[in-house]
Amino acid sequence: MEDLIVCKYGGSSITTNEDLKRIGNISRDDLRRRVIVVSAPGKRNKSDTKVTDMLIKLGQTKSDHYIDQIVTRYRELGYSEHLKGFRTELFSRVKESLEERAYMDNLKAFGEEGSAIMFEDSVGFEFVDPRELFLVTNDFGNAKILSESKEMIRENLGRKHESDKNKIFVVPGFYGFTADGKRATFSRGGSDLTGAYLAASLGASVYENFTDKEGVFSASPDLIENPHKIDELTFNEMRDLSYSGFGIFHQEAVEPVQIARIPVHIRGTFDYPKRGTYVAVDRICNPDKPIVGIAYRNNFCSFNVTRPGLDDRIGIVADVLGVFKQKKISIEHVTTGIDDISILMDQTQFKNGLLSSVISGIYDLIGDNSEVRFSDNLGCLVIAGKGLRGKRGISANIQKELDDDGVNIRVISQGEQERCIVYGIASEDGERAVKGLYERYLR
Amino acid sequence: MEDLIVCKYGGSSITTNEDLKRIGNISRDDLRRRVIVVSAPGKRNKSDTKVTDMLIKLGQTKSDHYIDQIVTRYRELGYSEHLKGFRTELFSRVKESLEERAYMDNLKAFGEEGSAIMFEDSVGFEFVDPRELFLVTNDFGNAKILSESKEMIRENLGRKHESDKNKIFVVPGFYGFTADGKRATFSRGGSDLTGAYLAASLGASVYENFTDKEGVFSASPDLIENPHKIDELTFNEMRDLSYSGFGIFHQEAVEPVQIARIPVHIRGTFDYPKRGTYVAVDRICNPDKPIVGIAYRNNFCSFNVTRPGLDDRIGIVADVLGVFKQKKISIEHVTTGIDDISILMDQTQFKNGLLSSVISGIYDLIGDNSEVRFSDNLGCLVIAGKGLRGKRGISANIQKELDDDGVNIRVISQGEQERCIVYGIASEDGERAVKGLYERYLR
Repeated sequence: MEDLIVCKYGGSSITTNEDLKRIGNISRDDLRRRVIVVSAPGKRNKSDTKVTDMLIKLGQTKSDHYIDQIVTRYRELGYSEHLKGFRTELFSRVKESLEERAYMDNLKAFGEEGSAIMFEDSVGFEFVDPRELFLVTNDFGNAKILSESKEMIRENLGRKHESDKNKIFVVPGFYGFTADGKRATFSRGGSDLTGAYLAASLGASVYENFTDKEGVFSASPDLIENPHKIDELTFNEMRDLSYSGFGIFHQEAVEPVQIARIPVHIRGTFDYPKRGTYVAVDRICNPDKPIVGIAYRNNFCSFNVTRPGLDDRIGIVADVLGVFKQKKISIEHVTTGIDDISILMDQTQFKNGLLSSVISGIYDLIGDNSEVRFSDNLGCLVIAGKGLRGKRGISANIQKELDDDGVNIRVISQGEQERCIVYGIASEDGERAVKGLYERYLR
Repeated sequence: MEDLIVCKYGGSSITTNEDLKRIGNISRDDLRRRVIVVSAPGKRNKSDTKVTDMLIKLGQTKSDHYIDQIVTRYRELGYSEHLKGFRTELFSRVKESLEERAYMDNLKAFGEEGSAIMFEDSVGFEFVDPRELFLVTNDFGNAKILSESKEMIRENLGRKHESDKNKIFVVPGFYGFTADGKRATFSRGGSDLTGAYLAASLGASVYENFTDKEGVFSASPDLIENPHKIDELTFNEMRDLSYSGFGIFHQEAVEPVQIARIPVHIRGTFDYPKRGTYVAVDRICNPDKPIVGIAYRNNFCSFNVTRPGLDDRIGIVADVLGVFKQKKISIEHVTTGIDDISILMDQTQFKNGLLSSVISGIYDLIGDNSEVRFSDNLGCLVIAGKGLRGKRGISANIQKELDDDGVNIRVISQGEQERCIVYGIASEDGERAVKGLYERYLR
């Protein structure tokens, strides 16, 4: 549907009555915006509580106090039509007897559901129940969308749109329904996933993801003062920058649109109509600007495994990585020297003696004369940009500049795709590394 | 035994009567040289046949012709004492009824055995039967030394040495005996392994490995005209250079001495007393010469595996490598980008449809939307030198120089040990890469 745009508005864009009007106006500003996904209302200020968090509290305490708080929150958004219905619904959900995680999901989903109903009543969108659109697995809190949903979406939303292109439909994000009719929420990605899946299923021309940020930044505002917004990104570049976690939605939510090759426009609700960051399968790259962004994250650690003759054992790298897999530890990067394997990963995974158990697992595997060196407090620096590929000398230049800046590089990993370069560096050098590279390549 | 040197002479050092005398003289030139390991007589010229190859032919054909040829070969070495006994022994071994590989090993071992007997008779060394020293597994053709051997060696060779330090003992290399008394040969390393294991078990002060080359070269003579000989190497550096395969013995043979921290002196029989390459646990490194050698080998290939969101799957790298392991394919290097895994390996392993089966194995594992790119005819370039570690900027400089030389770098892998840097490059750029680096760092 080339004439359709799916929009998603995040919770931080839904905090006041002003916001509801703004979303109504934006949605009506382009006649192609006909499917809207909304999150639960977000925080009005730093000390405020999100509706979703109130719902979690409600589930934990079953106290009427939180029902009042939630209803009040919707009232403060300038909404009045069905507040009584909201209250009745919440009372009845609190009383439901469901297995714990299903019970919590049934409550949590109300944040988005209430939000969508509010948009129907006060902005004039037409509510569509996820029950008609999303059949999901019963992994409550981490539900996966089943492929039948695609057909359901085309049938129950696509057709409605075809039959009346003036209507704007609103769908609550964040959840679907299991085969036996229970609400189940998604984990990571949340409402972003709802929007992406709708856009992909309907073959939208673009998926607009509105948040309180103007787009994706080329470096973290925590490290660089006023980093510039990126105008265009490829899906791969966005993925590579996702290490830093700023303004980027999770891979799980990107996947449906990336695979369907539907562009994503990440833009600011409060900056509208200013363009944000446009993410597509490919883009034209200015050869003078090969790097599009720098991501950096602390709290990495590395295991370095050596033993004379290690490489002669067939399957040894697979076996070493198997130790981590068996303990469900997610690894980020692998590099090998000769008889020398290094593995970089998030160190926050190691709790309750898991570290010792991994180290001894590796020693047991490799046997006598092996050495396992563990280094903690590393930072993972990712230089991303499709211009890196085939740009002779740039990787060497970057490394030289980092060296000159006194950055202690521990591990370098560049995939054959040359899409990005990953450095494992000492945490203390992280800020220096990002600042130096930003000045040279992105200022 | 600080006062003991174990020497091993390769087959190319044992081709004429002159050679026997030379080995006698060298062995007596240092009073610590008291345990000698010998190989089977080697080729006198390019078109000559090694005794071991004659023995293999004998086993295959059971033709008396080869017995004559073998006996003649020993006679031409100026040996006469027990040629009749040699003939009788060979006749009887040909008639033995043994399982095929055991049968071949029983014959092949005669090359070294005859050589050692010849040294006893004509040079005055005292023969020691491997039966008293090496208890091995019954993996014929690829026998492994069992740890009981250490005590046997101390008991049956160490004590003899202690009781008469004037005697020089000669041990045939290349084989040991199984628990039920059969001869079984080692595979890779062969006689080198015999020498290394003896040196380690006896705690020798040094293990001298004599060949027809003056030592280890800093680059392959096939690519560099008159590369210089390396004076000192660490075990790790030697291992890293072993990719090139010139003048270096196999890791399996290095392991016993490396673990026992006994230095190895790789030197030329025909260059004696000129020093060769001295290999030890560590060495003093001239900071102006961080690189000790460059190894290069063709016939590598790489698999590059990508899929959106690949990194989010716990254990995915282990699983991909598992495809290779399951098919008993030996891999050399692994590097990862983001959602991007590259694996470098020897391409000569892929025969009889194995390649397609690996590629489809990976597709099956990763599922929809994955991409597996196979690149063949790559070269593997290894820059080795303990000086690389902690030498800021050198890795970037090398990469820059390779770039400037127009070398197409496909994969870079540097282990955390920073012992060496491994580049996967286009085969056609191999010679250029080695020449450029040799001129800059080793000339």
